[in-house]
Amino acid sequence: MNRIDLNCDLGESFGAYQLGMDEEVIPFVSSANIACGFHASDPVVMRKTVELAGKSGVCVGAHPGFPDLMGFGRRNMKVSPAEAKAYVQYQIGALSAFCRACGVKLVHVKAHGALYNMAGKDYDLAKAICEGIAEFDGSLILLALSGSEMIRAAKDTGIRAASEVFADRAYEEDGSLVARTKPNSMITDENEAIRRVVRMAKEGKVTAATGKDISIRADSVCVHGDNAHALEFVRKIRSALTAEGIEIAPLAQIVS
Amino acid sequence: MNRIDLNCDLGESFGAYQLGMDEEVIPFVSSANIACGFHASDPVVMRKTVELAGKSGVCVGAHPGFPDLMGFGRRNMKVSPAEAKAYVQYQIGALSAFCRACGVKLVHVKAHGALYNMAGKDYDLAKAICEGIAEFDGSLILLALSGSEMIRAAKDTGIRAASEVFADRAYEEDGSLVARTKPNSMITDENEAIRRVVRMAKEGKVTAATGKDISIRADSVCVHGDNAHALEFVRKIRSALTAEGIEIAPLAQIVS
Amino acid sequence: MNRIDLNCDLGESFGAYQLGMDEEVIPFVSSANIACGFHASDPVVMRKTVELAGKSGVCVGAHPGFPDLMGFGRRNMKVSPAEAKAYVQYQIGALSAFCRACGVKLVHVKAHGALYNMAGKDYDLAKAICEGIAEFDGSLILLALSGSEMIRAAKDTGIRAASEVFADRAYEEDGSLVARTKPNSMITDENEAIRRVVRMAKEGKVTAATGKDISIRADSVCVHGDNAHALEFVRKIRSALTAEGIEIAPLAQIVS
Amino acid sequence: MNRIDLNCDLGESFGAYQLGMDEEVIPFVSSANIACGFHASDPVVMRKTVELAGKSGVCVGAHPGFPDLMGFGRRNMKVSPAEAKAYVQYQIGALSAFCRACGVKLVHVKAHGALYNMAGKDYDLAKAICEGIAEFDGSLILLALSGSEMIRAAKDTGIRAASEVFADRAYEEDGSLVARTKPNSMITDENEAIRRVVRMAKEGKVTAATGKDISIRADSVCVHGDNAHALEFVRKIRSALTAEGIEIAPLAQIVS
Repeated sequence: MNRIDLNCDLGESFGAYQLGMDEEVIPFVSSANIACGFHASDPVVMRKTVELAGKSGVCVGAHPGFPDLMGFGRRNMKVSPAEAKAYVQYQIGALSAFCRACGVKLVHVKAHGALYNMAGKDYDLAKAICEGIAEFDGSLILLALSGSEMIRAAKDTGIRAASEVFADRAYEEDGSLVARTKPNSMITDENEAIRRVVRMAKEGKVTAATGKDISIRADSVCVHGDNAHALEFVRKIRSALTAEGIEIAPLAQIVS
Repeated sequence: MNRIDLNCDLGESFGAYQLGMDEEVIPFVSSANIACGFHASDPVVMRKTVELAGKSGVCVGAHPGFPDLMGFGRRNMKVSPAEAKAYVQYQIGALSAFCRACGVKLVHVKAHGALYNMAGKDYDLAKAICEGIAEFDGSLILLALSGSEMIRAAKDTGIRAASEVFADRAYEEDGSLVARTKPNSMITDENEAIRRVVRMAKEGKVTAATGKDISIRADSVCVHGDNAHALEFVRKIRSALTAEGIEIAPLAQIVS
Repeated sequence: MNRIDLNCDLGESFGAYQLGMDEEVIPFVSSANIACGFHASDPVVMRKTVELAGKSGVCVGAHPGFPDLMGFGRRNMKVSPAEAKAYVQYQIGALSAFCRACGVKLVHVKAHGALYNMAGKDYDLAKAICEGIAEFDGSLILLALSGSEMIRAAKDTGIRAASEVFADRAYEEDGSLVARTKPNSMITDENEAIRRVVRMAKEGKVTAATGKDISIRADSVCVHGDNAHALEFVRKIRSALTAEGIEIAPLAQIVS
Repeated sequence: MNRIDLNCDLGESFGAYQLGMDEEVIPFVSSANIACGFHASDPVVMRKTVELAGKSGVCVGAHPGFPDLMGFGRRNMKVSPAEAKAYVQYQIGALSAFCRACGVKLVHVKAHGALYNMAGKDYDLAKAICEGIAEFDGSLILLALSGSEMIRAAKDTGIRAASEVFADRAYEEDGSLVARTKPNSMITDENEAIRRVVRMAKEGKVTAATGKDISIRADSVCVHGDNAHALEFVRKIRSALTAEGIEIAPLAQIVS
């Protein structure tokens, strides 16, 4: 039977600032990537979010980002591999404290925003992050862009990796995402987006922007809970996957 | 045989900013309180400091403070107990990541600066911090002002507590420190300071500012490594304690 | 003819975080207190907010707060008068840059949150803030709690002061606000709140929580634009004031 | 008669962290670039540094950087031109508040670290910064790398620009600095470094790394006051320039 994980970024509020519809989206996903205080979140929000995930039976992952709250971790920063490694360890450790306090298991790590994108293309950065994870806990699963340098680095480091795909993004023939600056980088038709995910999950294939079919590994689909529209899409994609006989399962049941 | 721990704040550098003579002072102490990124330090500094402590065989403790880098955590902030608890857990977790990565055991927790002072007098704040520690790891030792609300809260919470004394501070009859704003709050004569510590360690007594002898529990003495003068004092006090037959020992051998 | 200013905190968004309904509330107020990046806001938000205020013909004030983004500047911090003065000057200067860039006049300064409250009761802190304002631009108007130490310090410093009243707060006989921790600190009936403001504007009187009528100077009423309900109240109070023949006017027309 | 400005970064301390030997270096320079709280400094340090510069008769410039205190503003950040413009305006405004408060004229603006380097090569970024300066005060002088996009953008924007040269850096044939990652990027022989600066000031020429002589405009030389060695070099270069009949003069006397 085919299985796929649905992952969503949660716990992105900060102080007086609310962001995301965490309580609404959490029943529909299997993995929560929880912000760790660098690009978003604060200790009070982190604790609350870990509690929410624990109560909801959703698997918890750390979602470390760049130390750029003002830019929400979405801006490239030229940090050294040693800095990236230390930043990731710090954030994983901080989140793990709330996991221990709340009796919730920490399962995976997914880099956020610009750190995710940069490390997906830069092997040295990716390797440093994977080593940071492995040194902390070699049983953690790295969740990263399918086919990226992160996946390669995780294998070289000896930690498990889960390959993430995007429902709403077009792919190049080499398996990378079509840059957002290009036309047709987004799959705007929701039904087409869902059909693509179903096919990635079942056949391990997707049609690239050039029209050519390519192979792609799909362990997890990234979904969003920022607004009512995103929420509606999560409901839809979950139904469609289930209807197609694809089981929504947490990462630990998918990667080995 | 009498035993006492010598503890020092380490790892207070931040980015391009250097602070403290960590490498020079570490051979003379038995416990290092390592800053966790809120009032001082950053992930790169934390990792380096944990490595240094590990190599030097000094016991490592987390030194969480207020989120006030500009004020070095020395300014009172009116945080709620829930906030204090979350801030402390976050910082302990972050430091513990480097301990795990470097194979170094995390032994104790000492609150920094204004958080140390406020929690020493405010039982609710103290209790929240102790619960934060206990939820993370019930085997951690709280290092706090001798006779303070922190020590009381640790006992109520069921975690071990080590009582800290100061060589260079005068005491009130109730065992609290004479406020720095008062005259004669500091013991400026180094030899007298050392004699006082020796007596606290051996007899559990100190002469209060009023002239009256009071009982005081002394598990650990706070020393500093900020400058050459402080460093010289650490050397002196260590020699004096040893000469008096008082063994310098880590916290875990002192509290039970 | 009676006149009163309606002031509202604006520009409290930060990076990816949206806060407040600035565009909706601005047509109803005469003065905007714009956050300056310490407790809320960032340079991009500040510029946009100054532009919005300029376009709307609303008078602009700086709204400096404590350097505590995580606590939204609402937590007391024990800063020295010299620190408070420097923090306020820094923030006024930063906001004034956008005023100069956008051709908008900077009219007033209102301290935010815990800084407002602490300086309202602490003359030294209040005096330092007023001196900070006066050194920067002696023609700026301080907007502060009616009857507070801030108003007194402004007079002593030689800058103009506008007295702020609250529609939804109860007053003690000495003119201070009933602490929020006490029962009956809030005026929950909207019509009563409006009647109280009308009376403060017309007669300079309000009924204290004890039932006794006291004198109170009311140059400006604080209103909020955080949510639909608050917005509705702004509409109501504006209509009521106008219906009572009280003109909504900017601070510079009210204080001299 | 030949004239050149000597500029130095000052006011880089932060909170409890001391950096630089400001008092020692200031008698030898003509312009001070004062950090504005993003990559270094805080409001208290800024005020003190403006006072020091005022007392010393040294011209004051704002030294805005990226919002990256942990990286001291030395790490490239992919900010948009609109963000860069707002960040620069914010920081200039903040510093200008202390200038107004202390009766010191704000003369120039020099971008710091990675912002300086990135804007030196990226015209859009440079143009945004220059527009930010011009909107705030069109009489400010931009101090930027000789021959860079910043100089070009300043001319296009209609603000005065001063061309900065480096004593200790090698140049490519196109006038850009040899990247630090390349061998021979630094001029390590102090006497050679000084001879090069004298020639740049007198002849407007320097020998590129390839051995070819190139034209270079030298309005100001960047010197450092971080340590005793740097300080000694400032003394030497000042003496050498004076001995060669080159007058040390502030920027406003050099650019028109």
